[in-house]
This record gives sequence, structure tokens and C-alpha cells, in this order.
Amino acid sequence: MLIRIKPLYSLVQFIFLYLLAGTLSAAVDKDSAVIRSIYSEALTSRIAYHNLVLLCRKAPGRLSGSPQLNTAIQLTKQFLQEAGADTVYLQPVQIPNWKPGYTEAIVAAGNRKVHLHALPLGNSVPTPAEGITASVVEVHSFDELNALGREKVSGRIVFYNRPMDPTLINTFAAYGKAVDQRVAGASKAAALGAVAVLVRSLTLACDTFPHTGQLRYQEGITKIPALAIATCDADSLSLWLKQNTDLQAFIKTSCRPAGDTVGYNVIGEIRGKKPAEGIMVAGGHLDAWYNSPGAHDDGAGCIQAVEVIRLFHSLGIRPVHTIRAVLFMDEEITQTGGKKYAQVASAEKENHLIAIESDRGGLLPIGFTFDCNEKDLEILQKLKSYFEPYRTDLFIKGGSGTDVAPLRSSARILAGLLTDSQRYFDYHHSANDTPEHVNQRELQLGSAAIASLFYLMDRRF
Amino acid sequence: MLIRIKPLYSLVQFIFLYLLAGTLSAAVDKDSAVIRSIYSEALTSRIAYHNLVLLCRKAPGRLSGSPQLNTAIQLTKQFLQEAGADTVYLQPVQIPNWKPGYTEAIVAAGNRKVHLHALPLGNSVPTPAEGITASVVEVHSFDELNALGREKVSGRIVFYNRPMDPTLINTFAAYGKAVDQRVAGASKAAALGAVAVLVRSLTLACDTFPHTGQLRYQEGITKIPALAIATCDADSLSLWLKQNTDLQAFIKTSCRPAGDTVGYNVIGEIRGKKPAEGIMVAGGHLDAWYNSPGAHDDGAGCIQAVEVIRLFHSLGIRPVHTIRAVLFMDEEITQTGGKKYAQVASAEKENHLIAIESDRGGLLPIGFTFDCNEKDLEILQKLKSYFEPYRTDLFIKGGSGTDVAPLRSSARILAGLLTDSQRYFDYHHSANDTPEHVNQRELQLGSAAIASLFYLMDRRF
Repeated sequence: MLIRIKPLYSLVQFIFLYLLAGTLSAAVDKDSAVIRSIYSEALTSRIAYHNLVLLCRKAPGRLSGSPQLNTAIQLTKQFLQEAGADTVYLQPVQIPNWKPGYTEAIVAAGNRKVHLHALPLGNSVPTPAEGITASVVEVHSFDELNALGREKVSGRIVFYNRPMDPTLINTFAAYGKAVDQRVAGASKAAALGAVAVLVRSLTLACDTFPHTGQLRYQEGITKIPALAIATCDADSLSLWLKQNTDLQAFIKTSCRPAGDTVGYNVIGEIRGKKPAEGIMVAGGHLDAWYNSPGAHDDGAGCIQAVEVIRLFHSLGIRPVHTIRAVLFMDEEITQTGGKKYAQVASAEKENHLIAIESDRGGLLPIGFTFDCNEKDLEILQKLKSYFEPYRTDLFIKGGSGTDVAPLRSSARILAGLLTDSQRYFDYHHSANDTPEHVNQRELQLGSAAIASLFYLMDRRF
Repeated sequence: MLIRIKPLYSLVQFIFLYLLAGTLSAAVDKDSAVIRSIYSEALTSRIAYHNLVLLCRKAPGRLSGSPQLNTAIQLTKQFLQEAGADTVYLQPVQIPNWKPGYTEAIVAAGNRKVHLHALPLGNSVPTPAEGITASVVEVHSFDELNALGREKVSGRIVFYNRPMDPTLINTFAAYGKAVDQRVAGASKAAALGAVAVLVRSLTLACDTFPHTGQLRYQEGITKIPALAIATCDADSLSLWLKQNTDLQAFIKTSCRPAGDTVGYNVIGEIRGKKPAEGIMVAGGHLDAWYNSPGAHDDGAGCIQAVEVIRLFHSLGIRPVHTIRAVLFMDEEITQTGGKKYAQVASAEKENHLIAIESDRGGLLPIGFTFDCNEKDLEILQKLKSYFEPYRTDLFIKGGSGTDVAPLRSSARILAGLLTDSQRYFDYHHSANDTPEHVNQRELQLGSAAIASLFYLMDRRF
């Protein structure tokens, strides 16, 4: 029932409400039917998943500056054309060009020399060509590090080993509580004279994959090399350190920054019937870590953005607003793709109604986060019931996504697709992020959710 | 807020409610804290997932009558002892002993002979030793079959090829709409003179795994052999049949019924402080199809039942009611394990407060189905809010599980653990149902949900 009729209304009121309810119900029914058709098309078509497999197989490790990124740009441009976008273009962006190089990390565990599963963090400087040999000191927090002081840290390799908290239900919260070690750990340790850092991979799985990610060096502090090591190795290393507090490690990496280069945000759109009404952006980021096929992070988000175009096109839904898929450059290192897009949008005085990013994996969608004013949030909350049959009905105020965030001053609504987070960090930033770990139906429930939100917003805003 | 205070209450009412709210809030807070500790323990411990891996590796294909089932019985008996059950025992059950044998299915596609990925349906009779060669006729429903009539069916192999409907959001509904082909297809075809049937695997994935399952022969109709074929092969076969309506297939299977044998329901319990108050059963079924490691179906349910015992034991929660884990025999073929358990319970005049089954995979739990009277459902609905932080708060009236259903006349509440169904049929009844496809956190959110429900019911009933 659309309207709950309270008791004791007058007959006139009753009749008025009855007629109104009839009219609105018809509209609601029509909208529900269109949304049903969007979901049915998404769940029946195999194109999106097929394209995800292609992207991950032809362009794995498509980090800024890699030849694979160029392959990915050409490939997704083609996906957008095939999806039925009426305009597809490339927006040039200055992107970094850090090279992962060759890495090894060996520790002396008793009589054995053990090769750790280790890879450099993004942005890391290399070791000297001959590598670094030093003793290892384990810490779990910056407080613990600072308590040790320069005397016990200087000349050593600092091993950050605070695990993600498995008791938090939302694994993104657990990530948020542990990521400081990876982002800021190198400079904190270098400030006390450390020569390198090893960082426990940010995953809740006990696995042998190093999960890399970005680090940021603090200005004015010596840049020291930083490696991620697999959680299984971190657990072992911690045990060995209990047996031998003077345990020596040898690390060597040739990773290095190599200046900037040019990449391209890949953009495709279906022009609205009244383009001046505004643009609705669905976005993901095209770059992925050098060690990863990037299926969940963020091949899935890119493919969903393309699929939004395909769904509107193939179902013949002509929107009033312009619908645009944007596949951003360089989310992982310096986030230049999102900034460039916002800059151009502002210069061109483009009017954005909504920009939504999908960057929480091609996992079961559960709702949306909205970054907007209270009045718009109220209008959006009224759309929630349409998503109940699909269980994607958690509509909450919250952050959007790294790449759409720079649009804050010019877009009316920023949003993010919310997914169930249980499995995300099993894959995140690792070689384990393969298309085999993306379920076609979960991916497509996400595509359909974004397309349905756009369909409804197109009629309500 | 526990109690919403309406305006204009008298001061006395207000003070009364204020004090009451204080007392109840303390109880609520305590219960929430215990539930929090149950979830934390479940998400921190690795034992349950480790045991699932052991079960699937040491006893894959543990179908009724197989030696692996005996291994599984001994192994899970040990799991229950290690979990802290104060009593562990085996309950003998007469179980069937159908043997899968050796199978092949070859079709003549053009000039090539193609081996299909085919396996016998459970209960199928064998072909003659020399196999069967016959032409294939494809149908999508019994109506279509009957319309063809004896003339076009007699002497041929009927190929049932109606896919599961991918547009249904709940994949169990899609399964329910397609399973008639597998269960009743052989007899329907035999009634018109068919010599064998091939059945499209019941999965939404396009894969090369035959997904087997039970068939039932109708009495008085010739029993003909029945094979499941992989969905990819079904799609190909359908294409070849369009090119050649007289396409010949050769099938051969030595599967056969081999009388009955004895198995054992594996039972472990923590005796309640007042056992006369009743028993709370958590159950799963221990048997799994011959071609499958049985991780989701239903290793997960068994391991969760064991884990409920471990959680109560390790957290030192002493329940009033007796908590019992029951790992049932023979869910897949003749469901004798559940029937036997109910029979004994009735003979011993055991009082069951609740019997819950987890048999929808070790996937993300989303809530519970309850089969009980309205008054009890109301009490249960009041517990829902405790599960909101864990997003397992869909409390609906509905079926329980095959193995606990026979307790209907003697148990007050029957229930089932509800999981998100998107991925379930990718694995169901196939070699693809491996522990690698079970996520440790999703599995343990299910264990914690059942344990938490028991904890609350122990205090409210």
C-alpha cells in the first residue's frame, strides 16, 4: 500500500486519497516494472562478466605507467562503444609512473634461510643495489615504536605486525584501524633511524599473498624502503623473533619512481533528452596494483559503470539527464584521475546531479552511501522501498568514493555502492583478486542497483 | 531506546517506566554483550574452518554407504569431543547404499565424438553393461514431453534442458522451479517409452561440473537410467540437436542400488542446568554427494552445529536447556537420519524447544525461517533487534530443514538458518563444492547467529 489511510477521515478526504493512491500506485507499479526489467536484463546477460574476465586477463597489474594500463584504456573504450554509449572519449591525465621492480626478502630462521612472500608498497624507494641486511624489531603501533625510541630502532628493520581486527563485522572498519602502519609506517620508523620497514598485509585471511598498497612519505624525513609481507609469513616471523630477538633479515627491492606519464580517464555517455538538467556519473577506477588482476579492485566498478550504459541502451530507456560512465585513472597512487575529471567539469561548468562510485568490490550489494544535504537525502530515502525486493535497501549518509569526492563542490549528490564486506580483503591489492572470485550474479546485482537508482532519480529530480 | 514514552503520561507512570526501562536496559545490555562475545570468539577462532577443511579432505563424497561416510562419522565425533560436548554418541540408522559406479556419455557432434561431463543421478539404475545408444530428444517441460507423445519419445533418450531462471533474486526459488526435471523426469519419460534421460545440471553457472542429486522413480513404471550433464554441455548439446535432430548418444553407467547398510547420526550435547526444560538442536547433514567434497552442502551446517557447542563451552555459558548438535545421516537419498532421530526423540519422550538446521550453505547468513505458532513467532520477533548489528535480522515464517522437519509433532519451534543465496548453486551437488569456496567469516557468522539465538531463547523461553 502506498498510503496508509488513518481512521475517521471524511468521505471527501477518503475519495481524494483513494484516487490519488490509484494514480500514484500506477506510477509506482510502472517504475517497479522497469526496475524489474533492469534486474532481469542484468542477471540474464553474460556480457559484463565476460568483459571483466577479458579486462583481468588482458590487462592485469594495470598500474599507472604500466603498458597494461594502456591496454585497459583501449579495451574499456571498446566496451563502452559496444555497450551503446553515444559518445566515448579519453580525457588526458598526468599520472605517476612508479615501477615495482624486483624484490626479495629473506630471514634467517634458525639454520634455515626463509624467503618471505614480500612485495614493495606503492611509492616505496628502492634499497641500495646490494640490499639491506639488518636486525628486525616487531611493533604493533606507533606508540610502541616511539616507546622503543631511537636507541632500539636505529639501524634496524621495523616490522609492523598489528593484524586487522577480525571481530569487527564491517571489515572496512577493521582496515581503517590498521592501515596507518602501511601508509605512514615508513616515515614514522625512519624518524627514529630505521633502515626499512616490513608491514603485515592488510587482510583477514591467513594467506601467502602479499597485499600491497600505497604509502606516503612525510616530507623532510629520509625515505626508506617498505615491503608488505603475507600474513602467514608475518605470523611466522613474529614466532621466530620470539626465539631470536636479534634475527637478521636481508631485503632487496629495485622498485622506483620514474617520473610522470600520461594516462586517460575513459568516458562514455548516453546524452539525456535535456542534458542541461545534469549529469549522472557511474564510476570506478581503471588502475589496479601491479601484482593483481584487479577483479574486485576495481575492475568490477568499471565494468558496472559500463553496464549501466548498456542496460539503459539495451532496454531502450531514454533518460532526461545525461548518463555517463567514467573509468578513472590512478586511484591507487595519487588520485589524479578524479581530480582531473572534477577540474574539467568545473571549467566546463558541467552540472552533476549525482556521481556514484563502485569501489567496494563486485560483491553482494546491500545499499548506498550518500553524501548530500538532508533534503535530498529525504527524497532518496523515499526510493528505498524499490530496492527492498533486491535487498539493496540500506540507504545511509556516508562517504562516496576517492574518485568522485573531488566533485563535492559541483555535484549535488555524491554516492557509493555499499557491498557486503566479509570477503573483500581476502582479495584486495593481491594476486588473489581474480575474476574467479567475482560471482557474476553479485556483480550484476550491483550494476542493476546503480542503473535502477539512476532510472528513479531521472524521474524524481 | 527500549521503551518509547508517549507524551502526557502521569509522573507516576513516568517514574515507573523510567525504573523499568533501567532494569530492562541492563538486561538488554548484558545480553548484547554476551552476543558480542559469541561473535568475537567465532570470528577469531580458526578451528571451525580448519575442521571443515579436514572433513572435506578426509571424507569427500561421503554418501550413504561409502567408506568416506564412516570416516566422517569418526572425525566429527572427535570434533564434538574437542568442542567440549559433555556427551557424544552415535545413533544407528538404516541407510541406503546406492553406488555411483562408472559413467560415460558420448554424443556424435558432426564428425566428432564428444564426451559429455555426465554423472548419474542418485538412485539411478544402471544401463545394460554394453550401454545404450539412441537418438536424443530435447524438452523443457513435462507438458512439452507429453505433447511429443509416445511416438516421438519411445526408444529415445529424453534430454531435459530447462535452465534455472536467472532473473529470480532468490536462487532457491529458481531451483524449486526447475528441480522437477531431475526428481521426476526419468519416470515421466519412461512412461512414454524413453530408454534413458539426460538432465541439465541445476546451477546458474555455465560450468563443466555435472551437478547431481536425487531422483525418485514412480512405482509401476520402468526404471530407466538418468544422468546429469554440465550446463555448458547442455547448451552445446542443444545446439547440436538443432543441426541434427537425429543426433545419437551413447550412455553407459554402472551405478546401482546395493541394499541397505548402517550409518550413525552423530550427536553431541551440553547438558542444561534444567534438562527437563527442553532441548535445543542445531543440525546439519553429514552425507554429501559422491562427486562432491560437500563443503557448503552440508559440511558447513555440520561444522556450525559443532561450533555452537564449542562457543557455549569455550565462553563458559551454562545453558538452562540442553544444547545438542546433531549431524544427520542420509539427507540426500532417503532422509532416514532425520526420521530416525525424531522416532527416538518421540519414544524417549524428549522435549524439544527448538530444532534448527543449517543446510543453505556456509554463506552470508541473513536471518532465520521459523516454523512455529504465532505466539512463539511474536516472542522470536522481539529478539530480532539483537541481530541487527550482524545483519542477520530477517526473521520470517517459513520451512526449517529436511532433517529437522520430522520433529514437527514433538518440537515447539522448527527453524532454518537463512543465507544469501546468490552463490549457492555454483557449488551445490558438484565437485566445485570445495572448502576454498567457503569464506571463514561467512561460515562463522552463521555459527555465531545460531549460538546467539540459542543463548537468547535459553533466557526467554
